Amino acid sequence: MHLAFGMIELDVPPTRLTQILHDVAASAAARKDRGSVASYIPELASVPASRFGCVIADCHGVAASIGDDAIPFSLQSLTKVFAIVLSLNIGGHEIWQRVGKEPSGTPFNFLAQLEAEAGVPRNPFINAGALVVTDYLMGKGPRDAASMVRDYLRICAGSNAIAINDDVARSELASAHKNRAIANLLYLHGVITNDPEAVLACYCRQCAISANLRDVTAAFLPFALGGYAPAAAETVMSRMTARRVNALMMTCGLYDAVGSFAFRVGLPAKSGVGGGVLAVVPGKAAIGTWSPGLDRFGNSLIGVYAMEEIVRMLDFSLL
Amino acid sequence: MHLAFGMIELDVPPTRLTQILHDVAASAAARKDRGSVASYIPELASVPASRFGCVIADCHGVAASIGDDAIPFSLQSLTKVFAIVLSLNIGGHEIWQRVGKEPSGTPFNFLAQLEAEAGVPRNPFINAGALVVTDYLMGKGPRDAASMVRDYLRICAGSNAIAINDDVARSELASAHKNRAIANLLYLHGVITNDPEAVLACYCRQCAISANLRDVTAAFLPFALGGYAPAAAETVMSRMTARRVNALMMTCGLYDAVGSFAFRVGLPAKSGVGGGVLAVVPGKAAIGTWSPGLDRFGNSLIGVYAMEEIVRMLDFSLL
Amino acid sequence: MHLAFGMIELDVPPTRLTQILHDVAASAAARKDRGSVASYIPELASVPASRFGCVIADCHGVAASIGDDAIPFSLQSLTKVFAIVLSLNIGGHEIWQRVGKEPSGTPFNFLAQLEAEAGVPRNPFINAGALVVTDYLMGKGPRDAASMVRDYLRICAGSNAIAINDDVARSELASAHKNRAIANLLYLHGVITNDPEAVLACYCRQCAISANLRDVTAAFLPFALGGYAPAAAETVMSRMTARRVNALMMTCGLYDAVGSFAFRVGLPAKSGVGGGVLAVVPGKAAIGTWSPGLDRFGNSLIGVYAMEEIVRMLDFSLL
Amino acid sequence: MHLAFGMIELDVPPTRLTQILHDVAASAAARKDRGSVASYIPELASVPASRFGCVIADCHGVAASIGDDAIPFSLQSLTKVFAIVLSLNIGGHEIWQRVGKEPSGTPFNFLAQLEAEAGVPRNPFINAGALVVTDYLMGKGPRDAASMVRDYLRICAGSNAIAINDDVARSELASAHKNRAIANLLYLHGVITNDPEAVLACYCRQCAISANLRDVTAAFLPFALGGYAPAAAETVMSRMTARRVNALMMTCGLYDAVGSFAFRVGLPAKSGVGGGVLAVVPGKAAIGTWSPGLDRFGNSLIGVYAMEEIVRMLDFSLL
Repeated sequence: MHLAFGMIELDVPPTRLTQILHDVAASAAARKDRGSVASYIPELASVPASRFGCVIADCHGVAASIGDDAIPFSLQSLTKVFAIVLSLNIGGHEIWQRVGKEPSGTPFNFLAQLEAEAGVPRNPFINAGALVVTDYLMGKGPRDAASMVRDYLRICAGSNAIAINDDVARSELASAHKNRAIANLLYLHGVITNDPEAVLACYCRQCAISANLRDVTAAFLPFALGGYAPAAAETVMSRMTARRVNALMMTCGLYDAVGSFAFRVGLPAKSGVGGGVLAVVPGKAAIGTWSPGLDRFGNSLIGVYAMEEIVRMLDFSLL
Repeated sequence: MHLAFGMIELDVPPTRLTQILHDVAASAAARKDRGSVASYIPELASVPASRFGCVIADCHGVAASIGDDAIPFSLQSLTKVFAIVLSLNIGGHEIWQRVGKEPSGTPFNFLAQLEAEAGVPRNPFINAGALVVTDYLMGKGPRDAASMVRDYLRICAGSNAIAINDDVARSELASAHKNRAIANLLYLHGVITNDPEAVLACYCRQCAISANLRDVTAAFLPFALGGYAPAAAETVMSRMTARRVNALMMTCGLYDAVGSFAFRVGLPAKSGVGGGVLAVVPGKAAIGTWSPGLDRFGNSLIGVYAMEEIVRMLDFSLL
Repeated sequence: MHLAFGMIELDVPPTRLTQILHDVAASAAARKDRGSVASYIPELASVPASRFGCVIADCHGVAASIGDDAIPFSLQSLTKVFAIVLSLNIGGHEIWQRVGKEPSGTPFNFLAQLEAEAGVPRNPFINAGALVVTDYLMGKGPRDAASMVRDYLRICAGSNAIAINDDVARSELASAHKNRAIANLLYLHGVITNDPEAVLACYCRQCAISANLRDVTAAFLPFALGGYAPAAAETVMSRMTARRVNALMMTCGLYDAVGSFAFRVGLPAKSGVGGGVLAVVPGKAAIGTWSPGLDRFGNSLIGVYAMEEIVRMLDFSLL
Repeated sequence: MHLAFGMIELDVPPTRLTQILHDVAASAAARKDRGSVASYIPELASVPASRFGCVIADCHGVAASIGDDAIPFSLQSLTKVFAIVLSLNIGGHEIWQRVGKEPSGTPFNFLAQLEAEAGVPRNPFINAGALVVTDYLMGKGPRDAASMVRDYLRICAGSNAIAINDDVARSELASAHKNRAIANLLYLHGVITNDPEAVLACYCRQCAISANLRDVTAAFLPFALGGYAPAAAETVMSRMTARRVNALMMTCGLYDAVGSFAFRVGLPAKSGVGGGVLAVVPGKAAIGTWSPGLDRFGNSLIGVYAMEEIVRMLDFSLL
């Protein structure tokens, strides 16, 4: 295969990668505190806390994998990465008039911040910002926005197994009181222009996209490879977009633990309350870990630990 | 010279580096908007807006340089990087009980945030956090805290030309109404324990440290070299401390423009209102630019532009 | 008629009252700035800005009246006074566990305040507090809460002309984005327990109650007469409840102009965005004015002026 | 004596007043919970919690008195009433350009409010507003502002026993960290123009004025008598100023318990952390109570209770 964009192959033999994942899985299994599985909707709460998987993918696709790598889980906030890419692919810089690119600081006063800043959310990964992106995507394509995000994920990953879980979507919508408050405030400020309830429903469907860890790790490869998706054998976003979203992940990707994650792992990454943690090694690889139990910031407790170990053993930290 | 810690030499010939700096200086000189020189104290306001310099340093020290690289300027917030390192060197993790490691979000309500979070500042680079670090350092050494920071900078840079500018310190103290408000609030919450006015005076003296761009760029080298300072030919901080502070710079180093900077430059960096911008290329180099005019976020307008160009030409972005 | 509760008759001849209203109407008519009619729903926006009426009622009922005293207008926030009385009549002090009794200060950060105070609204007259009262009333009677408030108003006023305007209710619900945000936040904090959308619908119906100025002034008489309603010839609330609600009106009744109103008028009072201003002269009278144009605080511009003049001429200020 | 301004004599025989005070003192003495004496400075903390006094004054001066009515105590916030009157006497409406007239709502975010409202405090009774009034008075008279307030109190009360306690002033200044934060913020916003430290020192001296309960109750009489001070036998403020300040007391006089106080007592009043509570019965009387123990809002626990009882027995509530 021809390697586009100066991407380099991992200079680590597959057997060594597999050995590392085995070691990490063993030490992860030994940890007693596994965090708390998200409980606000039944579909998330029922996922066994023991689920665990790790995947490393490089320019050739999945290079090593261990554990529950084939069981679909709810991507949740991981989908926000693809939604912002889609909006950049469609409208270029346009979206930045409605959402910022900076860390949001502490969530203690997220509504106060929205009020003070006239409704412009700080970045596309906080819920307010993601709702703006959803609103932006609505009407921009032949399908509803959530389906567009799902289809784009399928292309990036080269897998049709990625799907919207309607039960999860319905449950989320039923308990989306805080996001409904946010959506109505955004509408009030004119930052979203579609009906707030419709935006909310679409957003919940987007968050309810599920995929297995192999597929979602493959889907993150373009961020490492200058926009090139090996599974699709084509460029799915510009090099600038990949870098822009890497910058967003580096500074805003882990909720209120982005600084600690930068120290522990040192890679652009995104987490979701479904327990997935996906990291980008620019020029080299994408790494995915999955464990449903969350820490107090909403990041996967074991997932972040496993990521830290893998990156440490491979010396992949950028810092 | 033996290269410690796996640091690598820049595989760029010095003539190429010099050529790049020449090109960047030329395009920077052509830009009309040069920002606004900080005016709140006379000593800063009187610096000519035309000042401009760029320095690249690698494991052998300064590798290329152009412009006003030998004129001392006020380091201001750049000193905060060395103050937090000193406090980590002295007390290990202890300081994290009094200051956080996460981005602070927008400054619109910095006092509200302090109130809501019981006085624990979000990170050591916002003024509140830097005051806590100063308070922590007071009494920890044989000299006053500002002198300790100056002496540590001298060691990192291998230069005794680094000095506290007493006129700047006095002027800053006289106009430090906002920081005085913060210091008194921090004392009220028990987050600082020395007299607020004494902490404030010491903090102003620390900010008033001045150095030329060659020296301050050399002083940032240890962050790129796992803690090793070529000028001192010794390790001046642990590899973990260097990584921790790189993570802080990556997520909190550019005031409210950290996300944009991550996209445009993609390196850990710190800016100061004196117009200095210092970036770290992990494993390879430190880069310094200086131009006194600031953008609306308080970062050097031309300094950030020049940094972006240098890093782009050398393809040094981590993202 | 026997005068209950030590109430005293106004020692002002009816002809003098009528003369005062004539004089006030004349000077009100001469004022050029009439404020802005609330425009967020068509039904309010279509009310002619020239509408104007004044009514004085004492223990015998309406004592003097002028202008548009028989044209129904939208009571809006005036209904909140009767909703809180109903909840006190039904459950005694219980409601105070969910809503406060203190002024709310500036509205700049009403959502921040809700967040910081765990969802307990400051008083029953701000929208958040009124939603809590509506939620409390739901299920407490044989009818929906809005109908209960309407029926109670009918009893207090002795008039069946008081009615819910369904068009206004529907319009308000369609544009209630801010209140929908608040209702969802309150539900999130467990401060309201019914479905937020149902609470909101009921609240909009309550606000959409309309009455003419004669009837609504009569309905305010019990607050002046220790709980006794002359129209019903019975006590409709306890003396303590009347005093409690007078205290709420005195300190929270005029949005963010309560201090100025206390100086200018010096009486407990409540305003609504429909342009009504109702004041209580304890022991003596109720006074109503109506003019649809609002000042920047949302109080009737001419209505407050007329109230000030009437009270000044009758020397009714308590202060 | 000729009764000016239509003021009326209390139609209660002195023996009845004395009997009421005896009864109230007895029931107050029986209460176990006496609150907590302010402890932030030694001079306040050392006042015995058992101190208790009540005074009723009418147009003839003190009409009845009981308990510790002759022991000087620290007036603290009670002085703010006289400072705002002085500034109105000197400059008319001018002061309202720098301070508001509305309740401040909850103190949870007083600094956030200052930030959001560009430094204009909500009213002259919160500390920020009182600092603005002090700043305004500085340079407006032949003496320092604190002495001006003391002298004005002496005139209102007809007593030279009112004095500034220098020990209290010094102690307050030493522990005034929050007020120092506020003063520096106000200066930053240009709302105060004198040196913040000088304003703070003057403010602490003003708060440190001490007087006995007889004198301070007499000093409040002009607010009840349209501006007339019986002790001075002259008008010491305009009728409008008296009403304006009564309105401020009614809506902002009791910190964050103004709504509850309006219900329980129903009179304009002001409290201080020295334990004094002073109420105005417009047209009739001034009432003072003193007990050093404070409730959680900073109001005298027994003082408010005693006030409520006295006013209930005399049926003096306005509401």
